[in-house]
Amino acid sequence: MVEKIPADSVGIVSYHDLEVREALTLACGQSLPGYNLRYECYGELNAARSNAVLLCHALSGDHHAAGYHSAEDRKPGWWDNMIGPGKPIDTRRFFVVCSNFLGSCKGSTGPASINPATGEPWGLDFPMVTVADWVRTQAVLSDHLGIAQWAAIVGGSLGGMQVLQWAIDFPERLRHAVVIAAAPKLSAQNIGFNEVCRQAIMSDPDFHGGRYYQAGTKPKHGLALARMIGHITYLSDDAMGKKFGRETRGGKQLSYGFDIDFEVESYLRYQGQRFVEHFDANSYLFITKALDYFDPAAAHGGDLAATFAQVQARFLVASFSSDWRFAPERSREIVQALFRAGAAVSYAEIEAQHGHDSFLLPIPQYHRIMRAHFERIAEEQGL
Amino acid sequence: MVEKIPADSVGIVSYHDLEVREALTLACGQSLPGYNLRYECYGELNAARSNAVLLCHALSGDHHAAGYHSAEDRKPGWWDNMIGPGKPIDTRRFFVVCSNFLGSCKGSTGPASINPATGEPWGLDFPMVTVADWVRTQAVLSDHLGIAQWAAIVGGSLGGMQVLQWAIDFPERLRHAVVIAAAPKLSAQNIGFNEVCRQAIMSDPDFHGGRYYQAGTKPKHGLALARMIGHITYLSDDAMGKKFGRETRGGKQLSYGFDIDFEVESYLRYQGQRFVEHFDANSYLFITKALDYFDPAAAHGGDLAATFAQVQARFLVASFSSDWRFAPERSREIVQALFRAGAAVSYAEIEAQHGHDSFLLPIPQYHRIMRAHFERIAEEQGL
Repeated sequence: MVEKIPADSVGIVSYHDLEVREALTLACGQSLPGYNLRYECYGELNAARSNAVLLCHALSGDHHAAGYHSAEDRKPGWWDNMIGPGKPIDTRRFFVVCSNFLGSCKGSTGPASINPATGEPWGLDFPMVTVADWVRTQAVLSDHLGIAQWAAIVGGSLGGMQVLQWAIDFPERLRHAVVIAAAPKLSAQNIGFNEVCRQAIMSDPDFHGGRYYQAGTKPKHGLALARMIGHITYLSDDAMGKKFGRETRGGKQLSYGFDIDFEVESYLRYQGQRFVEHFDANSYLFITKALDYFDPAAAHGGDLAATFAQVQARFLVASFSSDWRFAPERSREIVQALFRAGAAVSYAEIEAQHGHDSFLLPIPQYHRIMRAHFERIAEEQGL
Repeated sequence: MVEKIPADSVGIVSYHDLEVREALTLACGQSLPGYNLRYECYGELNAARSNAVLLCHALSGDHHAAGYHSAEDRKPGWWDNMIGPGKPIDTRRFFVVCSNFLGSCKGSTGPASINPATGEPWGLDFPMVTVADWVRTQAVLSDHLGIAQWAAIVGGSLGGMQVLQWAIDFPERLRHAVVIAAAPKLSAQNIGFNEVCRQAIMSDPDFHGGRYYQAGTKPKHGLALARMIGHITYLSDDAMGKKFGRETRGGKQLSYGFDIDFEVESYLRYQGQRFVEHFDANSYLFITKALDYFDPAAAHGGDLAATFAQVQARFLVASFSSDWRFAPERSREIVQALFRAGAAVSYAEIEAQHGHDSFLLPIPQYHRIMRAHFERIAEEQGL
């Protein structure tokens, strides 16, 4: 429970649901008869509708980016340090929107939703959704909100991939693209880690081919393993070393057994167990596949610059020195291709020791860059 | 089946078993009433007993380092490219010994062996074995073979850790120490990966608390997952990229489902499935714990140089540029501590793209260094 809502918080917020009744044909060829998009908004849309900022969330994120759902909440939204009155993305100036993507388990339609054709949860029969599909649904939400052009679209990690896809697919609908800790496509190593996570879930006997809702079970062990693997890849070796070193749990002697010896083991088990309480295993499967499949240059023979030929947005690309999931090199690939495509692009490589997770943290240099960038956008938009 | 035994092979070899009947008190405080050590020898011990080289193997290795057990073998021993007549560790000059460590599943006593007190497999009741325990059993083997001093003790990865422990615990019993792709202790990230592997095995319902032998099952899924995770950490991101890229399996279209799409997925699943056919899950648990526990400096307040104060061996330390499991930085920690301790040490940082696995591969620069080093040892020993 939060003691007192801080003054620079967007405060108590609530989500909205957009029920779309038109069918959506997806990149995979299948279609959804209709779907729900859950989203939140912070700040006020101005009369010119020129101050709207769209946030795109990452794997385990959701629409709840800032503020609290109630005074009983222990924690605010996932990007609360970035969004609020006086924060880098300043809600006194900007109208900020964040929607949960399809396939997730946080309120938008996903594999745990009811398949109207069967009256049962979709499970693995849910159609495969891609980053391009998500962007199309976000465009539907933009229309619903009456936003013809976003002042900026912003995202980190898988969120950054959605920003790239927006700039490619709807070049006239965003003025600025902010792409943080992302990559133009996954490496074989990235896909390898995702595949191990999927195998962990799918080989859990409580998975039941994805029909565990009906079986009254949950593939908890598999999903916890997936989260543990994920966590290691989100943190740098250095950050883990500084955080845990080889400290034994509670400073105890070695157990010479298979109980927890080291703090890092305790941390990972806890993270795994906590995750299964609020995340759906099927969603994890679908979202990791969307990551694996993301490769916008594939439609242009692998030529990323050609892929960016039509972009109109001005880009800020940012990476973190210790990120080994999507290393700075991957951001530089994006920057170089944008340059070759003649796009306007700034690049910031931020010294940070927290690995991929840095994009979520209030790192001073990072926040200074974001603040300055959004101040320029505000000026440019006359806000 | 090998077409024809190559001329530079040690040829058809067979293992020996040393049945030790004296009890061994282990670092954990428990003792083994007796144990078997399985080992192989290549070349001939000279009259002066001055040409003996001990190899220490890594996690999934064994005593079978070179040659073939029969003409039907598809592959030779795990370090066949390094050991043989005319090879860097030249069996025309050196007498080479490799023993399987306790806790493994390749012939030396381990958790799948029969506990004489119960008449059943030890399982998790097998006592925790450490790198120091292994070195003590290798010293027993040295006595049995009549080798008072090894010309060199050599090992990569976990094998290199055994070499360090030898130099610390039995300084007068080795003239040269060759420590390849090792670390003075595991990082929090290393321990984290090991913990995820152990959780994968132990949460497999076929694990039965380690008593799966009695249950007639095998925790195949868990062990396969552990091997898949391991494989990703053995290869560099670059090496995986060069080997698999984002190639789809057989050049097929994306499946938009959860079957294998990418070559890297197919490779990892295959490696996982193959591993479970010849490795015991309990051994994997014990060996990863031995890795986690390895920290010889702990007994000296974390001062690695003080730990090395009594070493007499001359060291060659080698690392590989793309190794991120035990990065060159970890080898440099060893080198710097040896320097501070006044030990003789050479260091080679080898450009290689294959990650941690490089230590097993016939990389020309690596083999040149090893060849030159063993030629100097041969000269020095008057071989």
